[in-house]
Amino acid sequence: MRNIKILLQYDGTNYLGWQIQPSGRTIQSCIQNCLLRITGENINVIAAGRTDAGVHAIGQTACFMTCSQLSTSVLQNALNSLLPSDVRITEISEVDSSFHARYSARKKSYVYLLTMDRNVSPFIYRYVWRIPYNLDAPAMRSALSYITGTHDFSAFRGSGCGARTTVRTLHTASLVEMNAIEVTTIQHSGSFMKFRFEGDAFLRHMVRNLVGTIVEVGRGKLKAEDMTRILESKDRKCAGMTAPANGLFLENITY
Amino acid sequence: MRNIKILLQYDGTNYLGWQIQPSGRTIQSCIQNCLLRITGENINVIAAGRTDAGVHAIGQTACFMTCSQLSTSVLQNALNSLLPSDVRITEISEVDSSFHARYSARKKSYVYLLTMDRNVSPFIYRYVWRIPYNLDAPAMRSALSYITGTHDFSAFRGSGCGARTTVRTLHTASLVEMNAIEVTTIQHSGSFMKFRFEGDAFLRHMVRNLVGTIVEVGRGKLKAEDMTRILESKDRKCAGMTAPANGLFLENITY
Repeated sequence: MRNIKILLQYDGTNYLGWQIQPSGRTIQSCIQNCLLRITGENINVIAAGRTDAGVHAIGQTACFMTCSQLSTSVLQNALNSLLPSDVRITEISEVDSSFHARYSARKKSYVYLLTMDRNVSPFIYRYVWRIPYNLDAPAMRSALSYITGTHDFSAFRGSGCGARTTVRTLHTASLVEMNAIEVTTIQHSGSFMKFRFEGDAFLRHMVRNLVGTIVEVGRGKLKAEDMTRILESKDRKCAGMTAPANGLFLENITY
Repeated sequence: MRNIKILLQYDGTNYLGWQIQPSGRTIQSCIQNCLLRITGENINVIAAGRTDAGVHAIGQTACFMTCSQLSTSVLQNALNSLLPSDVRITEISEVDSSFHARYSARKKSYVYLLTMDRNVSPFIYRYVWRIPYNLDAPAMRSALSYITGTHDFSAFRGSGCGARTTVRTLHTASLVEMNAIEVTTIQHSGSFMKFRFEGDAFLRHMVRNLVGTIVEVGRGKLKAEDMTRILESKDRKCAGMTAPANGLFLENITY
C-alpha cells in the first residue's frame, strides 16, 4: 500500500463541509468518489482539518492509502479532471506510511475575513462576514492578546466537539484592517478586517466562536479583559456568537 | 418622471446576461422585478452594455424612469436588500431627463482574464479562461497594436449584432502578464494574462472575438500582421474563436 499526501484548495460555499455525510455533497465524498473511479478502490481520505459546511480551504492537507501504481502526477491530473472546479488538488506526493494528515500535524492556521460595509461586492460576498456596524479594532486587538498562548478553550468549543482535552496553544491571533480587497486584479474598496489564527490544534468551531466573541468586543458589548473571565468560565454560554462559516479559510497545515 | 442612474456590479456566472429573455434569469429581469416590488411600477431599465450570458460587470451603468418619490439612498438600500448577493447597486443618483445609459455613453472599457495554468484555483476559475498552452505575449501585444485605432470591425462581429455601422475606435488594447492573482487577500500564483480594451463602442461579441483571435496569434497559428488581413476581409470566418464569457468583465462606462 502506498500512502499519498495531497494539498488541496476548495471554495466551501456549495459543500456540507469536509466530512462524508449520510446524504449531501461533501469534499471528502467528492474526492473518494473520484478515487473510486480512478483506482477501483474504496478509499478513505483523511484530512488535517474537518472543515464545517461553507468553510473554505487554501491549504488543506489530506492523505490516503492506495494499491494503485499510478504515478502521483497522473493521479493528480486524473483527480483534477474529475473533481468539480471548486475543489483542486494543488500538490501530491508519496509519503512514508507513518504520515497521518491529522495526527502528524504540528500547527494549523486559519484566516477569517469580515467587512463593515453595508454593500458587499458580488465578487467578495462568498468570502466575508458582513457586519454593518463600526468595530473598534484596537479593543479587538487587545482582546486577541488575552487569548494568545496556552489556555483551556472550553468556552469556545462548539457542541458535538469530540476532543479529549480542551487545552490548546494559540501561537498567533492577529487582526489587520484593510480598506480594499483585490479580486482577480480588481480593487474593491471598503472596510475589511482580516483575522489570522495559528495554533497547535483547534476545537470544533473554536475560530468562529473566537471571532464572534471578539466582534462583541469590537461593538462595545464586551470588554477586552472579559476574555479572561470567559476563558475561566469554561462555559460556552459566556462567549459570543459563532461567526458564520463563509468568512473562514483553513490556511495552512505545518508538519 | 424622475430619471435615475445606477452604477452596478455583478458576477454573471448564474445569469443569462443583461437583457430580459422569454424565460430564464437575467440581470435586467432581476432589477425590474425588484423595482416593481418597491415602486409598484413596471419599469424598463436600460444598461450601457448588454452583457452576454456569463459576462461579469465591475462598473455597469443603467438608468430608468420612475414616478416614485423615494430618495435615491432609500431606493438603493431597498434594491440591494431585495437583489441577490451577486448583483449590487454601488451608486445611485438622479440625473437630467436627457441622460440615456446607452446613447449618452462616450467610452466603454472591458477587461479579459486568462490563465495558462493546468490547474486553476477554486477561487479564480469563475473569472478566467483556461488555456493550457504557452502563449507568446510579445506576438500578442504586436497583434493588439494592429487593431488599435479606428477600423471596420465586421470580422469580429458576432452573429445577431444589430449595429448599423461596424466602424469602431479602440483607444486602448493592452496585455499585461501576471504571475499571481490575489483573491480576498490570498495570493494565487500562476501564469495569467489580463487584456484591457477601451473604445467608443463595441460590436456584439467583439471583445471575445478579438481575444479568441489574439490567442491564436499567441499559439503561433496566426501571425500578428494577419490582424490587418482579417480586419480587411470583413469576414467573421477569417477571425478566431469567440473566447468564453466567464473571463470577460465590463469595467467602466464614461459619459
